[in-house]
Amino acid sequence: MNELLERIRQDGKNLGNGILKVDGFINHQVDPALMDACGKELASRFANVGATKVLTAEISGIAPALTTARYLNLPVVYARKTKPITMPDQVFLTLAPSHTKGRMVELIISPEYLAGHEKILIIDDFLASGATIMGLVRLAQTAGATVVGVGTLIEKTFEGGREMLRPLGIPVQSLVCITSMDKGQVQFGECG
Amino acid sequence: MNELLERIRQDGKNLGNGILKVDGFINHQVDPALMDACGKELASRFANVGATKVLTAEISGIAPALTTARYLNLPVVYARKTKPITMPDQVFLTLAPSHTKGRMVELIISPEYLAGHEKILIIDDFLASGATIMGLVRLAQTAGATVVGVGTLIEKTFEGGREMLRPLGIPVQSLVCITSMDKGQVQFGECG
Repeated sequence: MNELLERIRQDGKNLGNGILKVDGFINHQVDPALMDACGKELASRFANVGATKVLTAEISGIAPALTTARYLNLPVVYARKTKPITMPDQVFLTLAPSHTKGRMVELIISPEYLAGHEKILIIDDFLASGATIMGLVRLAQTAGATVVGVGTLIEKTFEGGREMLRPLGIPVQSLVCITSMDKGQVQFGECG
Repeated sequence: MNELLERIRQDGKNLGNGILKVDGFINHQVDPALMDACGKELASRFANVGATKVLTAEISGIAPALTTARYLNLPVVYARKTKPITMPDQVFLTLAPSHTKGRMVELIISPEYLAGHEKILIIDDFLASGATIMGLVRLAQTAGATVVGVGTLIEKTFEGGREMLRPLGIPVQSLVCITSMDKGQVQFGECG
C-alpha cells in the first residue's frame, strides 16, 4: 500500500536489531487519516472471508484493528496484557514473547467476548516472528472459534512470521513488506 | 449523548465501588460505529478551541481519541505506561494513581511528539477523580504546551474530577454523566 510505504520511507527509522521506529504515525503518535486508509484497505482485502469479529492485541494493534473493524462493520476485541478488575476470574490466557519488551507477556481475553461460533479476523500493526499473532490464534482456538485471516500493516519478511502462520491455511495480508533491515537500510519488497 | 447513554443502560454493569463495567463496547470489546459517533460528537464540541493535537493515555483512551482526532483532522498521541525501546532516553514522565489498578502508573510521552507550541485537546474514556487527566495536563505543561480542552465519554460526577479540572479554566465536555452508582444503580444526570 503506497501511502503507508511512503510514510515509512519518510518518517520510519531503522534502530538496528530489526527494530523499526514508526512511533510518529503508528504506535505513539498516530495519524488517524493514515490509519483510516489502512483499515479501509485491510477491510477490502478481507471482505469475503466471513469474519464475525476482529481480534487484536493491545496496545499498538488497537488503531488499525479499530479502523478495519469499522469498515467491516464488526466488533473488535483487543486482548489485554494485564487483567482489569472488570474482567471475570475465568479468562482465556496465553503467553507470547514480546520482541520489543524482551520478555513474555500475557494475552488475556474475557470469554464473554470470544465465543465458539465466531469467525475471527486477526489484525495487528506488525507481522515479525508471528509470536504475538500465534498467541491470538491460540486464544481463538481455545475458545473454539475459527481464525479466518490475518492482516497487518507492516511485515518483516525476514523474521519468518508468514512461515509460522502457513500451516493454518488462511489468508495472510500485509500492507507493506520489508525484506531487509541490514546495514541500517529499510528494503521494501514482495510479501511472498 | 443518547446513543452512548442507551448503550450503557443496556450493556453497562455496576460492579460496586464505583466501577462501571463497559468492556463490551468501550474497553475490551469495542463497538467501532459507536466510537465513531462519539468521536464525531466530541470533535463537534471542540471544533473551535484551536487544538493542534489530541492527547490521551493508553489503553482505553485510544479508541475515542482516535475517532475524535480523525474528525478534527489532527494527530493523536497516546501516553505510554511503559517506555518502549523505540523511545529516546529523555522523556516526559509523570505518575498518576490508577483507580482500576489500585497503584500508581507512569504516563510517558516522547518529547518528539509534544512541543511547546502545541494546543492540546485531552480525550479519555472516563472522567472520574481526574487523576489520569491531570497527569496528562502536567505532561503537556511540562512540555510548555497549552491544554485547550478535556473531553470524555463518561463522567462520574460524584468522584470530583470536574472540580479538580476547574482551576484550568478550560472547557470540559463529557458525553454521558453518571451522578450516582449507589445501591447497584446507575443514575444519569446533568454534567454540571
